[in-house]
Amino acid sequence: MKEKKLWGGRFSEAPSSLMVRIGESISFDKELYKQDITGSISHSRMLRKIGILTGEEQKKIEDTLKLIGKEIESGKFEFKIENEDIHMSIESRLTDILGDLGKKLHTARSRNDQVSQDVRLYLKEEITNILSLLFSLLESWLEKAEKSVDIVIPGYTHLQIAQPIRASHYFLSHFWANLRDFEDFLSARERADELVLGSGALAGVNYATDRNFLQKDLNLGRISENSMDAVSQRDHILKFLFVSSQFYIHASRFCEEIILFSSQEFSYFKLPDSLTTGSSIMPQKKNPDVAELIRGKTGRVVGGLNHVLMMMKGTPSAYNRDFQEDKIPLFDTVKQVKLAIEGIREMVSGLEIFPANAVRSLRSGFSTATDLADWLVFQKKIPFRTSHEIVGELVKHCSSRGWDLFTIPQGERGKIHAVLADPGYEDAIVLETSCDKKNVPGGTSKPMQKEQLKNAKRKLKELEKRFQIQSSKGKKNV
Amino acid sequence: MKEKKLWGGRFSEAPSSLMVRIGESISFDKELYKQDITGSISHSRMLRKIGILTGEEQKKIEDTLKLIGKEIESGKFEFKIENEDIHMSIESRLTDILGDLGKKLHTARSRNDQVSQDVRLYLKEEITNILSLLFSLLESWLEKAEKSVDIVIPGYTHLQIAQPIRASHYFLSHFWANLRDFEDFLSARERADELVLGSGALAGVNYATDRNFLQKDLNLGRISENSMDAVSQRDHILKFLFVSSQFYIHASRFCEEIILFSSQEFSYFKLPDSLTTGSSIMPQKKNPDVAELIRGKTGRVVGGLNHVLMMMKGTPSAYNRDFQEDKIPLFDTVKQVKLAIEGIREMVSGLEIFPANAVRSLRSGFSTATDLADWLVFQKKIPFRTSHEIVGELVKHCSSRGWDLFTIPQGERGKIHAVLADPGYEDAIVLETSCDKKNVPGGTSKPMQKEQLKNAKRKLKELEKRFQIQSSKGKKNV
Amino acid sequence: MKEKKLWGGRFSEAPSSLMVRIGESISFDKELYKQDITGSISHSRMLRKIGILTGEEQKKIEDTLKLIGKEIESGKFEFKIENEDIHMSIESRLTDILGDLGKKLHTARSRNDQVSQDVRLYLKEEITNILSLLFSLLESWLEKAEKSVDIVIPGYTHLQIAQPIRASHYFLSHFWANLRDFEDFLSARERADELVLGSGALAGVNYATDRNFLQKDLNLGRISENSMDAVSQRDHILKFLFVSSQFYIHASRFCEEIILFSSQEFSYFKLPDSLTTGSSIMPQKKNPDVAELIRGKTGRVVGGLNHVLMMMKGTPSAYNRDFQEDKIPLFDTVKQVKLAIEGIREMVSGLEIFPANAVRSLRSGFSTATDLADWLVFQKKIPFRTSHEIVGELVKHCSSRGWDLFTIPQGERGKIHAVLADPGYEDAIVLETSCDKKNVPGGTSKPMQKEQLKNAKRKLKELEKRFQIQSSKGKKNV
Amino acid sequence: MKEKKLWGGRFSEAPSSLMVRIGESISFDKELYKQDITGSISHSRMLRKIGILTGEEQKKIEDTLKLIGKEIESGKFEFKIENEDIHMSIESRLTDILGDLGKKLHTARSRNDQVSQDVRLYLKEEITNILSLLFSLLESWLEKAEKSVDIVIPGYTHLQIAQPIRASHYFLSHFWANLRDFEDFLSARERADELVLGSGALAGVNYATDRNFLQKDLNLGRISENSMDAVSQRDHILKFLFVSSQFYIHASRFCEEIILFSSQEFSYFKLPDSLTTGSSIMPQKKNPDVAELIRGKTGRVVGGLNHVLMMMKGTPSAYNRDFQEDKIPLFDTVKQVKLAIEGIREMVSGLEIFPANAVRSLRSGFSTATDLADWLVFQKKIPFRTSHEIVGELVKHCSSRGWDLFTIPQGERGKIHAVLADPGYEDAIVLETSCDKKNVPGGTSKPMQKEQLKNAKRKLKELEKRFQIQSSKGKKNV
Repeated sequence: MKEKKLWGGRFSEAPSSLMVRIGESISFDKELYKQDITGSISHSRMLRKIGILTGEEQKKIEDTLKLIGKEIESGKFEFKIENEDIHMSIESRLTDILGDLGKKLHTARSRNDQVSQDVRLYLKEEITNILSLLFSLLESWLEKAEKSVDIVIPGYTHLQIAQPIRASHYFLSHFWANLRDFEDFLSARERADELVLGSGALAGVNYATDRNFLQKDLNLGRISENSMDAVSQRDHILKFLFVSSQFYIHASRFCEEIILFSSQEFSYFKLPDSLTTGSSIMPQKKNPDVAELIRGKTGRVVGGLNHVLMMMKGTPSAYNRDFQEDKIPLFDTVKQVKLAIEGIREMVSGLEIFPANAVRSLRSGFSTATDLADWLVFQKKIPFRTSHEIVGELVKHCSSRGWDLFTIPQGERGKIHAVLADPGYEDAIVLETSCDKKNVPGGTSKPMQKEQLKNAKRKLKELEKRFQIQSSKGKKNV
Repeated sequence: MKEKKLWGGRFSEAPSSLMVRIGESISFDKELYKQDITGSISHSRMLRKIGILTGEEQKKIEDTLKLIGKEIESGKFEFKIENEDIHMSIESRLTDILGDLGKKLHTARSRNDQVSQDVRLYLKEEITNILSLLFSLLESWLEKAEKSVDIVIPGYTHLQIAQPIRASHYFLSHFWANLRDFEDFLSARERADELVLGSGALAGVNYATDRNFLQKDLNLGRISENSMDAVSQRDHILKFLFVSSQFYIHASRFCEEIILFSSQEFSYFKLPDSLTTGSSIMPQKKNPDVAELIRGKTGRVVGGLNHVLMMMKGTPSAYNRDFQEDKIPLFDTVKQVKLAIEGIREMVSGLEIFPANAVRSLRSGFSTATDLADWLVFQKKIPFRTSHEIVGELVKHCSSRGWDLFTIPQGERGKIHAVLADPGYEDAIVLETSCDKKNVPGGTSKPMQKEQLKNAKRKLKELEKRFQIQSSKGKKNV
Repeated sequence: MKEKKLWGGRFSEAPSSLMVRIGESISFDKELYKQDITGSISHSRMLRKIGILTGEEQKKIEDTLKLIGKEIESGKFEFKIENEDIHMSIESRLTDILGDLGKKLHTARSRNDQVSQDVRLYLKEEITNILSLLFSLLESWLEKAEKSVDIVIPGYTHLQIAQPIRASHYFLSHFWANLRDFEDFLSARERADELVLGSGALAGVNYATDRNFLQKDLNLGRISENSMDAVSQRDHILKFLFVSSQFYIHASRFCEEIILFSSQEFSYFKLPDSLTTGSSIMPQKKNPDVAELIRGKTGRVVGGLNHVLMMMKGTPSAYNRDFQEDKIPLFDTVKQVKLAIEGIREMVSGLEIFPANAVRSLRSGFSTATDLADWLVFQKKIPFRTSHEIVGELVKHCSSRGWDLFTIPQGERGKIHAVLADPGYEDAIVLETSCDKKNVPGGTSKPMQKEQLKNAKRKLKELEKRFQIQSSKGKKNV
Repeated sequence: MKEKKLWGGRFSEAPSSLMVRIGESISFDKELYKQDITGSISHSRMLRKIGILTGEEQKKIEDTLKLIGKEIESGKFEFKIENEDIHMSIESRLTDILGDLGKKLHTARSRNDQVSQDVRLYLKEEITNILSLLFSLLESWLEKAEKSVDIVIPGYTHLQIAQPIRASHYFLSHFWANLRDFEDFLSARERADELVLGSGALAGVNYATDRNFLQKDLNLGRISENSMDAVSQRDHILKFLFVSSQFYIHASRFCEEIILFSSQEFSYFKLPDSLTTGSSIMPQKKNPDVAELIRGKTGRVVGGLNHVLMMMKGTPSAYNRDFQEDKIPLFDTVKQVKLAIEGIREMVSGLEIFPANAVRSLRSGFSTATDLADWLVFQKKIPFRTSHEIVGELVKHCSSRGWDLFTIPQGERGKIHAVLADPGYEDAIVLETSCDKKNVPGGTSKPMQKEQLKNAKRKLKELEKRFQIQSSKGKKNV
């Protein structure tokens, strides 16, 4: 026979099997066991402080909660579907062990503020882990960029070769994108860094809960201002899911490039064997699976953001049971973000560049056609419009014969326009020179690359420092 | 030490730990074990037919595959992460048992067409299960409607009371919506009902695969026309996810109504205790959790649709590893759709209506104000515009004194306009009469309700028949 | 001074400026003017049939509505924001011209069923236009495929060269995908092909509306069964938006391929100049803008689907003002789908293939490595596993020296394994042979290409016929 | 005949009609005319500073640009589709007027960095406008809350009445949610507040562009660090679209409450007539259209976020033509956010509360059942579990007879349990008392409401100050 529920007073029937199956969350929210125990321990200390628990009682509760934590970690804990969620599972085990004393822990607390708090603690912790990983990805970008200042690769627009760029410039472009992600994850962590315990079901609690004590004991940044808003809003989850989506958009773009540039046709990037797979049929295959998987996961993460946005839309204030499943995309996204950061970091570190192949592309893509036109303008005093047309003709001529700007014979150049056979032509189309003319802050010239590397390094130092500052307020770094 | 991969020939390093963790799908695709075994058995029979396997060999393979199926079902099968996915797990176990013979099964087959086929078999089977459930939900709507022809409830627009309707009309409105879902799920099943084995990696296979034999043996509706399209497209998944989203949109709307109409303020719907939960704190609470959970899951299912849409966007032809995770939202959505159908069916069957409370709303919402205006037009020959204004004034007057059209004293009515005190007033505002004036096909009058119920019943009979017809072509009903 | 609204009776204040600005839809729903006039004309004929209008009155109304249509088309019609939407704009003009007779048109009709009907008429018409365009795109795929049976291009998985395929096979893979779109657009048209007039505000109308007459006069496929469902559901819009999203996913994938294959690095596709743009700076640029724009628009169209899904979620039955904006993504998507079909058709027709460049890729990608391994298995009786490894070694050796399977000297081959220097090697790696071994239905062999082309042609003929059948029921073809 | 394009050198065909239609953006990006002119003026000043323009030339250009701005504002400017976008339209007009001098403006600038800069200027300006509106909405919440401390309304969970709360608490819960939006819009503005001019097409420019001068002249917060990232990323747009989505989620929830609480059944909220509409048919209707429209627009805004996320996914670095349409959801969302803020502000200000109706709900919802149970625990020393059951029984008894805790006769109470007939019962269930027991920070007691109002006021003051600080750096406040 089914046991009577705690709230069964008014009810004449037990929950149907469907109700149990559709309503349970223990299959996913056990992820929160650590935060639930931490939160409960702090709550018990506060109850002692305001005289609801004696020192001895509190100690028993704290010790038992820690014991339960170990049971869960060691796999000995038995999860039962009738306990519905992780919170009831732990509370029920506590009461098994401590009897009525266990029940006292729920004084001055509602499931609503308890779960809300656990999720915030979880988010804060996991974003901290993500920030650590992301920091080391930033270091990888920087390291890679430092090593590749002297390699010239094609810069594309519309996936058509546009201009030569230094490979360092390329890697740094991803550095700055991920730096924005870092800042936004920090801001998402701040949003979650809040004490909501004491909000009760929605209106506050009937006890003299000491929220300052709780804030300090849980090492949280601030105290929520409105109990109803505290249990009703999910902005901390939304923000995290959005920042994760933004990060994944960045990741998907780098992965696309990895896939492109390591194709046979481009072939100036090469991934280490350990990050690719072969085919049991086709002996020549070397597939960039990590890059593809991450690119594909972008849909998964953005799907999770959509899940919560749609779930929240049009729901009235305070808690609605709809919200129970906010944790599913949250937990999944945490995992996917970590995987992607690791995956990208390994790809960045392991990536080999084949400069000769990059140069092949740069030549066949007429990447310095603009520089040639500029030469006509500045050295030959031909108006830009006309220069552009002359070079356009030259490109057309080369294309149709299988030449590029470097291989077309001097005589053939002269056929398009006499000046093209003049000395100075060869110097005008040198790839490195093209880069070094972009000597404006943020540009791809060598001096500006050095500058940019310095700025990136300084930025990383700043972040490290900021962590220290934050850590002095908190329990640990990051 | 890590074992060498099957495709390791060209590779000097083993996959990194990250590659293994990000690349595995065994944690979710074991869901496909049954279809993988079914597909492999058919493939082995075909290999025998074209002379690649002997009869004896085929028998051994078939028996062993069935044995492996039982191992999995009984929980004895050991899943290893290095086997990556369910297909390799089964194949590797087959080779453990049968040695080199086991390896022969992969002849004339690529992982690409194998997985594509398994997913189609899975979809076909699961949509069939969904259709069965949905059919019984349609029966529930019909049954409920039949019992509630004589109950009048408010019809809303803008959530403002508009006109009285028969409760049967309301329940049937959901019947017809779910009937469209039924038709669309059928169409999604048809899309999946296709043989793709024989497509190889993307270009076909180097063997004389007998695709007609496979089609018949797997009881599939047709044979794919283009091997590249067959392994590259995911339209069957997209269609299923969309129809599921549409179904969930319908579900979310009914759930919203359940939540509204069973609130204290409306209180003319009441769910059975077995589908609600109480509060451990607040003894009066009776929460419509099933309805809320389903409403919230709409985001989850639409999130899944978005996952796959975004995942597919802009990927080049044939297989990309991005696609591996299409199965995650697919499997989840199958479960969520089944849960929601069950949940709604139980709510529909268990729902109690409180007609008196519905009437209270109908009165306080002046639901027959239009009928009163019509009476002025037709009986009192007052132009509609003026009638509308007179009734508007009357409503305003009632509102400010706490009366409704039924409780306002005759004398007071006369103060607004003399005709309002005339006999006939009472008859003009009767709720049932208002319904019965909507005597147009699809309208809420009693005769039209009878008609609509007949149409709905006939439609259900048709579906039943159609199942029989389809089932005669296939292995079993639906 | 603001004019009093038709429904102003009960209201003491005029709508605020904000209410007017946020509530107007005339800025976008004028797109429906034609359908509104068509629907109103049919409605007036029905009113005559049931005796509410005289023949003369009806004629005046019909003539005036046609006149208003011409005013709108010629740009003479003055749209006023206080008329809020296209329906009120036309009605108000009608009353300007005909006085009280104009007002009679609204008898037995509510804004709710009127707008619902207009949108369905619009959808039916526009999907018909889309189907025409799509049919001609299918013809273009077929035509292109027919011309390219003898061209061999690389088939990719993971964007790594996998196996040679015939270009016809590639084009036909897109043919079959768009054929599914065609079928799904047809099914979306069917969903919209329904008479809903007579549903009133939500419960039916108080008049003896002859719905059969209206169905015939508007040439619609069926009559809605439930007035509440009719004005409440948006499944016809959702289905159209989904099918459009699916079409766009297909389109985005072809566009990705166009962009890739016409990059300098691949360069075996070339778009006509008329479909590309250059750069005012870089004379060598030839950007595949049409392909990029279509790929990008995928987000726009899927965004529109999300708009309506989220808009509908959790709304209670019958009309809610939220729904007003369903028309915005609907109208936009109609335009985007037409543009994309045109764009793809022009790209397909105008596309030039450079077989020599395709062969360069096929060679440098070792596309017939599997065929070589097969040769070792079948001719040299080396077990597949070993063959795979030998060829793997050969590929590695070639890669490191800049050779491919065709250019590596015989002696060098012998260094890897003696058999590789044997005669027969050259034949084993021929690209066409590799294709022709895939001689299974749906495969890339020449005979199977012929077969597939025949099937595609037959399918097109069937569609043409089906149009005729449908057209015999309707006013015009498709 | 079609004019030759600026980049036509290499091209033998003019753009096709389709190319023109699909490629144009002038139909929507004219919204940027002001920013384009501002950006161009600063650019011209910089060109003078580095010696490319003379002072006189620059003056002519600046004057003409301002003139063109006036032409556009006065509607005299003729937009031509062949000018494609607003930037070319303005440039072409400039050259019409100034001849070759006009062309000089494009020196050291690419369309890529120009457009990127314009969008950032636009975003910065429009977010500033949004912040102003949002600030005044925050003031409205506060004002409303201050006036309603003494009104008690129901607090819900699961839309079931849970506990009485003060109306001020309710309004403040929305205040704090919108305050988070304010902070996030500020952060989105910061992201956009960046100089990107000087990034050229992707690699920087070949001129000594003085980016510090430009930053100061355009009053921007910082200079972009990497030219490639600058023209490639759309994080500023994504962030804005996300914050707008979050704001709309908040808005949709308040709108849902407005719709619910102003339904006949709840009827303790009433909107002013000026924000509602009536029905031309049903004289009693008063529809909360503004609330419904905003709730529905949530889908539109989230659809826009999805548009850009999907558009960006998997695109390679630097500019792709896909990105052209990022501006469509951007411009639309700016408008929708402004409309919604205005709409909510008017609803908040105009809202009337009917306390008596709220009390009716509170009574019929047994909102102080928990307080009664607490009374049994603390005064009657009955264990909570038992108290909860007794009160559960009492609620059941009342429900079945149509009583509530206030109306049930003393004798009847005694039948459930003797203590319920004791004196003190009446005091235990008083609504205000229930509120005031939640006397914890963030709770709904009167003193805590006063505290919360003070905090909210202080927060507003801080924001005001912060504007001043920011404004001292910039040209104007906010």
